[in-house]
Amino acid sequence: MTKVRFNLAISLDGYLAGPNQSLENPLGIGGLQLHDWAFPLAAFRQMHGLEGGEVNPSTQIIEESTANVGAVIMGRNMFGGYPGPWRDDPPWTGWWGDNPPYHVPVFVLTHHPRPPLAMQGGTTFTFITDGIEPALAAARAAAGNRDIVVAGGAQVVQQYLAAGLIDEVNVSVVPLLLGAGDRLFEHTAGLRLEQVRAIAAPGVTHIRYRVIK
Amino acid sequence: MTKVRFNLAISLDGYLAGPNQSLENPLGIGGLQLHDWAFPLAAFRQMHGLEGGEVNPSTQIIEESTANVGAVIMGRNMFGGYPGPWRDDPPWTGWWGDNPPYHVPVFVLTHHPRPPLAMQGGTTFTFITDGIEPALAAARAAAGNRDIVVAGGAQVVQQYLAAGLIDEVNVSVVPLLLGAGDRLFEHTAGLRLEQVRAIAAPGVTHIRYRVIK
Repeated sequence: MTKVRFNLAISLDGYLAGPNQSLENPLGIGGLQLHDWAFPLAAFRQMHGLEGGEVNPSTQIIEESTANVGAVIMGRNMFGGYPGPWRDDPPWTGWWGDNPPYHVPVFVLTHHPRPPLAMQGGTTFTFITDGIEPALAAARAAAGNRDIVVAGGAQVVQQYLAAGLIDEVNVSVVPLLLGAGDRLFEHTAGLRLEQVRAIAAPGVTHIRYRVIK
Repeated sequence: MTKVRFNLAISLDGYLAGPNQSLENPLGIGGLQLHDWAFPLAAFRQMHGLEGGEVNPSTQIIEESTANVGAVIMGRNMFGGYPGPWRDDPPWTGWWGDNPPYHVPVFVLTHHPRPPLAMQGGTTFTFITDGIEPALAAARAAAGNRDIVVAGGAQVVQQYLAAGLIDEVNVSVVPLLLGAGDRLFEHTAGLRLEQVRAIAAPGVTHIRYRVIK
């Protein structure tokens, strides 16, 4: 059965990204360290075309996060570049180069219309201007019976959580205290969760919850 | 070697207590549920003079949290009752009845002086009016080579964390989204932590960190 899920790394104080996000620091100051546990892994390096690397209990987490994904939804800030209307000189095509690591249809929530953008490797960015439910409908149509991943940022995840549209929450809790930035769980009070499992790994604890509906 | 540590349950969104703390709801609205994982345990029930109960991976957490404790430090709000000067009719002697579950010297941070209060079972409340460092010095003197537990609330823990006086952080992450209340990790940015271990248990994940000094 298709699940709508997210798989996100957060600091112990709950931040998905540090403060002062910019072109130079897309995850904000200190935010890149949220992924320190992943960088040495063979499973992570392979996603980015690199050889070598380690295997540890986080390997399973990387593999599960990317397995059986039929479509991805993200916010405009995560797609990145700049706020406001799209520009043409040159067009912003995401942070990820010509061959983004998604390889499935990606639906970008934005207030600014733009034609779809086909990248190498099967990633197509489709820009959705009428909100989270139409984006999810489009993602469901594209995903078939595979899962839909809400990739971020915090605001988009919160909107889907608050609307009761997320089935599974995966957080990787990292031993960092960022102190500022975007908190993942805001405006989500009262949502009922059941802990499914927790996996200890070097420098991170991965916890899965099911959303009780 | 003596460690200064805390062992606290927090919601997935980072709250140590819910909103609207009161005599009726000392942990705030929804806050009591932060301890739902502990209530059925034999190890917890025994601390409160009750028989029966379960054994599961959280048993070890309860046992470790209470083992080798030589002194406890807490804030005035956690000791409870009411804000402001102490009253005599009748005197507030804490939330815990005549035989509090500490059984060691407890140092209560307050702005309002008061003579020490000896309870049954070895718990003595000593009221410290000159701040966190004198309280810690008194706790060290009382604890010998046993550990010092900073019991809460959030403000007191944050003050000790920010001052670099905590050696070990133990959090029990509970699948609750409280949305408001007292967050544990505020004003603690930049503190460096190393994850020591994580233990999955029914309805909770227990993570231990060492503070890197």
